[in-house]
Amino acid sequence: MGKVRVTIWNEYRHEVLEERIAKVYPKGIHGAIAEMLGRHMDYEIRTATLDEPEHGLTQEVLDNTDVLIWWGHMAHNEVSDEVVERVCKRVLDGMGMIFLHSGHHSKPFRKLMGTTCNVKWRENDEKERLWIVDPSHPITAGLPEYIELPKEETYGERFDIPAPDELVFISWFSGGEVFRSGCCYRRGKGRIFYFRPGHEEYPTFYREDITRVLINAVEWAKPFEYPKLTFDHVPTPYEDIPLKQRH
Amino acid sequence: MGKVRVTIWNEYRHEVLEERIAKVYPKGIHGAIAEMLGRHMDYEIRTATLDEPEHGLTQEVLDNTDVLIWWGHMAHNEVSDEVVERVCKRVLDGMGMIFLHSGHHSKPFRKLMGTTCNVKWRENDEKERLWIVDPSHPITAGLPEYIELPKEETYGERFDIPAPDELVFISWFSGGEVFRSGCCYRRGKGRIFYFRPGHEEYPTFYREDITRVLINAVEWAKPFEYPKLTFDHVPTPYEDIPLKQRH
Amino acid sequence: MGKVRVTIWNEYRHEVLEERIAKVYPKGIHGAIAEMLGRHMDYEIRTATLDEPEHGLTQEVLDNTDVLIWWGHMAHNEVSDEVVERVCKRVLDGMGMIFLHSGHHSKPFRKLMGTTCNVKWRENDEKERLWIVDPSHPITAGLPEYIELPKEETYGERFDIPAPDELVFISWFSGGEVFRSGCCYRRGKGRIFYFRPGHEEYPTFYREDITRVLINAVEWAKPFEYPKLTFDHVPTPYEDIPLKQRH
Amino acid sequence: MGKVRVTIWNEYRHEVLEERIAKVYPKGIHGAIAEMLGRHMDYEIRTATLDEPEHGLTQEVLDNTDVLIWWGHMAHNEVSDEVVERVCKRVLDGMGMIFLHSGHHSKPFRKLMGTTCNVKWRENDEKERLWIVDPSHPITAGLPEYIELPKEETYGERFDIPAPDELVFISWFSGGEVFRSGCCYRRGKGRIFYFRPGHEEYPTFYREDITRVLINAVEWAKPFEYPKLTFDHVPTPYEDIPLKQRH
Repeated sequence: MGKVRVTIWNEYRHEVLEERIAKVYPKGIHGAIAEMLGRHMDYEIRTATLDEPEHGLTQEVLDNTDVLIWWGHMAHNEVSDEVVERVCKRVLDGMGMIFLHSGHHSKPFRKLMGTTCNVKWRENDEKERLWIVDPSHPITAGLPEYIELPKEETYGERFDIPAPDELVFISWFSGGEVFRSGCCYRRGKGRIFYFRPGHEEYPTFYREDITRVLINAVEWAKPFEYPKLTFDHVPTPYEDIPLKQRH
Repeated sequence: MGKVRVTIWNEYRHEVLEERIAKVYPKGIHGAIAEMLGRHMDYEIRTATLDEPEHGLTQEVLDNTDVLIWWGHMAHNEVSDEVVERVCKRVLDGMGMIFLHSGHHSKPFRKLMGTTCNVKWRENDEKERLWIVDPSHPITAGLPEYIELPKEETYGERFDIPAPDELVFISWFSGGEVFRSGCCYRRGKGRIFYFRPGHEEYPTFYREDITRVLINAVEWAKPFEYPKLTFDHVPTPYEDIPLKQRH
Repeated sequence: MGKVRVTIWNEYRHEVLEERIAKVYPKGIHGAIAEMLGRHMDYEIRTATLDEPEHGLTQEVLDNTDVLIWWGHMAHNEVSDEVVERVCKRVLDGMGMIFLHSGHHSKPFRKLMGTTCNVKWRENDEKERLWIVDPSHPITAGLPEYIELPKEETYGERFDIPAPDELVFISWFSGGEVFRSGCCYRRGKGRIFYFRPGHEEYPTFYREDITRVLINAVEWAKPFEYPKLTFDHVPTPYEDIPLKQRH
Repeated sequence: MGKVRVTIWNEYRHEVLEERIAKVYPKGIHGAIAEMLGRHMDYEIRTATLDEPEHGLTQEVLDNTDVLIWWGHMAHNEVSDEVVERVCKRVLDGMGMIFLHSGHHSKPFRKLMGTTCNVKWRENDEKERLWIVDPSHPITAGLPEYIELPKEETYGERFDIPAPDELVFISWFSGGEVFRSGCCYRRGKGRIFYFRPGHEEYPTFYREDITRVLINAVEWAKPFEYPKLTFDHVPTPYEDIPLKQRH
């Protein structure tokens, strides 16, 4: 297998519209993540943003993506349904996908989950701790038992998602909330990871520990040689049982 | 709590269009299920079908339904998106829902699952055995360890669904297939049960054992006094942590 | 079905040995729970303690118990292996079981889980909040979205348990920890609920909200008409396939 | 990381005691598996058997094992409790473990599961088909959608295990049974895979498809750089909350 092909999608609006955000992420959140991943791994990295044609996610781009990372927030509704459909189909066909932070409310995440994906939230510079609850999971490789972020946006339960197939992190916030912060899903042939941190006001994506989680998640979600499946009408595969004569 | 209010929705096309099916279900599949449930339980039962206005599923009907049973097959695409949206929203708000047989490919099931829900299938009069794999589940109350159906349509894996939150039955078919036949899901506040049997050509819904499964599923899926949840922006609920002054 | 038969087992040492604990629970923790359950439900309630013969858990008592509630802490090792074996067998045969607080380290819980069940802990009078993460679960019936305990012992992840079959509550502690506080397991025909609160120094078991959780858990865990299962050698149950002649 | 260190443990009694079994596995089942794995992978392979001192599983051997494969059947009870304890502890500490066929009733499997692990069984030369039910799982890499074994021992549900954390295969048997044949568990830091096939009378372990499953399972279960966890008493890790002065 060649290099893992990672596409980092970012809404890229806050960084353009708000000076204080641009100061935190001068190259955009996608640029920061791309740089951090590239520092550690020999991935083939590409970025795409909302305001590019087809949001930068043409069929060709998706067909050449092993793992898609998604950050969106203020403009979820501007993502076209056609691209959402295309992305979800690729996930079910085996592309890995990582949703970051407010991506919990993005169209593709909600479509893949089938629920509202609603949360509580509060911008209050609170401390967050992401505690590992499943150390048998490869997404925890090389991490300390918790990651502490001195200031982050607060999210709180009830997070209206299907119970994760594998729950990796639970967050504690100084203001009194908890949150299922690292959630793995298997949908079709694809693997999906939701990871909570990454509010645009904080330099979360420059951190080595957060980068390690993203790399671990890419490694977990990247495609392998999937089994070949068939669907729909099938003649009986068991030679000893005759097809009935009917109709 | 008053009587459990059960609405049985049936596409009701095969029984109208095909004489041989009408012979099996002269009052429609919904009529057969209604009669069987009513024989054992003091439910408030209502039926609804595709060709009624709004498919018989007005907001008022849904608001007065505790558990919705769904049978559909040849006309999935004729179900309006508006009604699908309404049904799914009610499930997330706590209405129980039971999808039967080819309802695996109905719009509301696919929307709630987020996957293709594709299967293998074959009409070959094969024998089916539904084996209990989780005897701790109340849907198995009072059942033998397997239910044998002398002739049924065959479904086969891979069934493209999220892994069930609780897997209750696995079917064996004489032609060589297996199938996850009794699948429980929790979505929002609602509980969803997918139950495989019930091809229109066979008198499956007149059986006592199948009826027992449906009653058990209604009991499992019916609403209770749900906890009250809040979402979206919340001020800090922990009195000792001051809100920052910002922006 | 007759009245639900609930047996409340308590180690009953702290209350006897330490005056300050006796002040909190003058009738023992078992006495407090028995009184609170009895105030709301018409259960047939019995109590049993460590220092009774066979710890009060004879085969006859267990055979006449629908749901067993267990509180233990300082004397886990004094529980005889024979009684542990007896209790676990009854759970697998369908008796419901609720483990409270430090019961996480009791012999029957560890045996049923197959893991160390280790936790972090700290006695620091911290505030605890138990957040509901699964409002579709009947154990949450009638509850607010979180239960706040002004002072409790702190437990923290990593809690070394198998991933719960259903995760109902996650606790937040003011000192910086989170904990999976309401964990459901299905083992054999039985249902097991682990519920974190209830340190002996605090009047937690006199609370109405905690009592409601216990009642909900009893209702969820109590036996139903279990399906009859067979095991071991079976002749072929499918009449068309002959037994081979061999050996 | 160096080579993956795989230890193949075999009871090795049938092959010694029964000539017809020796003909199928002249080098023992362990020998056959070792040869097949070695043909494809550059693993550091070691074997161990029941009648060696400490069953060949000294602390040193286990400390130098990444993944332990276990085949046992007629002599489960001869495995010493001390070795069982040692093996289970290593699994919880992160060693991968693969249980084959009748290993479902071995002491370490039952101890790790906490249930009886009972099954139905029949020796009847029936056909088995292992259907993939989770194509997103790396244990299915490179496989066809089902593996057909022309003759195998039949196992049937109810298989008295905890619901698998990930269910990969379900078997169909020509005599009328189904079985959860590929079951993944996460316990402590370790990953456990139960794989049904491999009765001693059949040359199952010489097959390329079965070997592929075993290799995939080794890759899935092999240790990674586990996060460092702490347990037991901890001072408050959150600097802003003072420890109370008490007692």
